[in-house]
Amino acid sequence: MSHWSQKILAGDLRALARAATAVENRHPEAETLLQELFPNTGKSKVIGITGSPGAGKSTLVDRFIRELREQNKAVGVLAVDPTSPYTGGAILGDRIRMLSHHADEGVFIRSMATRGWLGGLAAASTDMAVLLDAAGKDVILIETVGVGQDEVEIARLADVTVVVLVPGMGDDVQAIKAGIMEIADVFVINKSDQPGADQLEREIKAIQSLSTRRDGWVPPIVRTVASEGQGIPEALSAVRSFLERGGGKDRAVENWSMRLREMLRERVLERFGDLDFQAAAQDIVARRRDPYTIVHDWLQRNAN
Amino acid sequence: MSHWSQKILAGDLRALARAATAVENRHPEAETLLQELFPNTGKSKVIGITGSPGAGKSTLVDRFIRELREQNKAVGVLAVDPTSPYTGGAILGDRIRMLSHHADEGVFIRSMATRGWLGGLAAASTDMAVLLDAAGKDVILIETVGVGQDEVEIARLADVTVVVLVPGMGDDVQAIKAGIMEIADVFVINKSDQPGADQLEREIKAIQSLSTRRDGWVPPIVRTVASEGQGIPEALSAVRSFLERGGGKDRAVENWSMRLREMLRERVLERFGDLDFQAAAQDIVARRRDPYTIVHDWLQRNAN
Repeated sequence: MSHWSQKILAGDLRALARAATAVENRHPEAETLLQELFPNTGKSKVIGITGSPGAGKSTLVDRFIRELREQNKAVGVLAVDPTSPYTGGAILGDRIRMLSHHADEGVFIRSMATRGWLGGLAAASTDMAVLLDAAGKDVILIETVGVGQDEVEIARLADVTVVVLVPGMGDDVQAIKAGIMEIADVFVINKSDQPGADQLEREIKAIQSLSTRRDGWVPPIVRTVASEGQGIPEALSAVRSFLERGGGKDRAVENWSMRLREMLRERVLERFGDLDFQAAAQDIVARRRDPYTIVHDWLQRNAN
Repeated sequence: MSHWSQKILAGDLRALARAATAVENRHPEAETLLQELFPNTGKSKVIGITGSPGAGKSTLVDRFIRELREQNKAVGVLAVDPTSPYTGGAILGDRIRMLSHHADEGVFIRSMATRGWLGGLAAASTDMAVLLDAAGKDVILIETVGVGQDEVEIARLADVTVVVLVPGMGDDVQAIKAGIMEIADVFVINKSDQPGADQLEREIKAIQSLSTRRDGWVPPIVRTVASEGQGIPEALSAVRSFLERGGGKDRAVENWSMRLREMLRERVLERFGDLDFQAAAQDIVARRRDPYTIVHDWLQRNAN
């Protein structure tokens, strides 16, 4: 095992940060590192936190960090939300509040840009979670915006997923129906001091009453006012209840199955060497050639 | 050329619907069809419409359809928004309003589920756009939710992208900064009769003043009240101004370049035959094997 891997396993933050950068840049070293570290993983609990922009996810994450730190847990945070203060989207106050954790050796925060990830965000998040797990983080918080396919896939890599809603955004519940409902293990109604919290809870319950999850779990609904720290222990206790049932196992198999497919797809492409995608794309736009025949020809050529 | 392709080129709606289903299911026939049709494409204008859930995108799309139909344009619609009435997310009133277009031969509406697309939503949307283009649609409207990577990629396939915002959602502008700003060719402030429209316009302008686009275009800001039909001609006229400058060409090359990469990646995987991803994933979750070595071994085996 490399010296680098040993340092990460020992919890060295600088080695960890350097590894995260290597994963980010898909440096060849990252793969060796992940390979070495992997057998030492599987100890962290991964909590996914998702919801619309403006739901107060970052404030909630901040409160979760504080609470977990008080319980002496080592915490890793991945922010995949473009509106998150970590990734540079939100207001200065949030950013400063987050910076407060940077002085704490037990907290490792990493933001991930939502684009430019060859091979997908879910893949990168999985690798990042492996790193944090190896570095001895007890809990890994992954913050995403709950709309697209990426976010649903990232939720799948979590052991438990918290969906954050706020009162007075009628469309939220519609969005839940369409995609988020099945990934929510815990609902948090944040900003629950605002009007409409009762109605929102009724709506969630109404949707829940329509169908039963395969695992029989009925996701609890917890009210919080994250900005005031209200409801935080209750939310984490709901998360713990789900984890204690051992709920996330099937999801992990499904996540790794997809991830293997992606990894293979990525790596196989490397065999083709330098293909001029740009020139081919220009031919396509000019209608000189069609994309389907181009790919067919490339495959033919490579088969020989 | 097949009879099927000929029918699509002649604008036969049933043949088109059947082709859309073939693309959706990745039926082998779809590829031949797309190959045959491709040389006859490049005539449609593709308008992307994106924004947060609740911004009123579907109502706006509905109004755009009406306006374009009055100008005698044939219209195709792809709804990739999980909260869209087409995909089944929204309230009954919207759904009924949309159904009104189903009687109109000049409008073809197709909703796309946001998950389960092997090879990605952007890929599927591109193929769908090829079909609609071949079928003689003058304008193709693609409705997405503007947050994730998928949506940004779909925006790239559009010739012009409209970003829909509503007053009083402060976080929207934050989200724009992080990801949407660079893809917006036209801003629409919908529900502009609500308080905060002036402030929202000021915020967009403030962000615009910070940097200049490479193409020198300053995205116009149009105010609408889609539910009342207000501002619709103005919005479409802003869209037309951008199209007349021939703005979307570079984006098309970039989109096809990415799409070629994806197609190749997908197709190459087929060579591996039946790999037991599920069993491998179970080994990974149990930490019996690590994913990086598994993929390495698969590649080795296939190379011999």
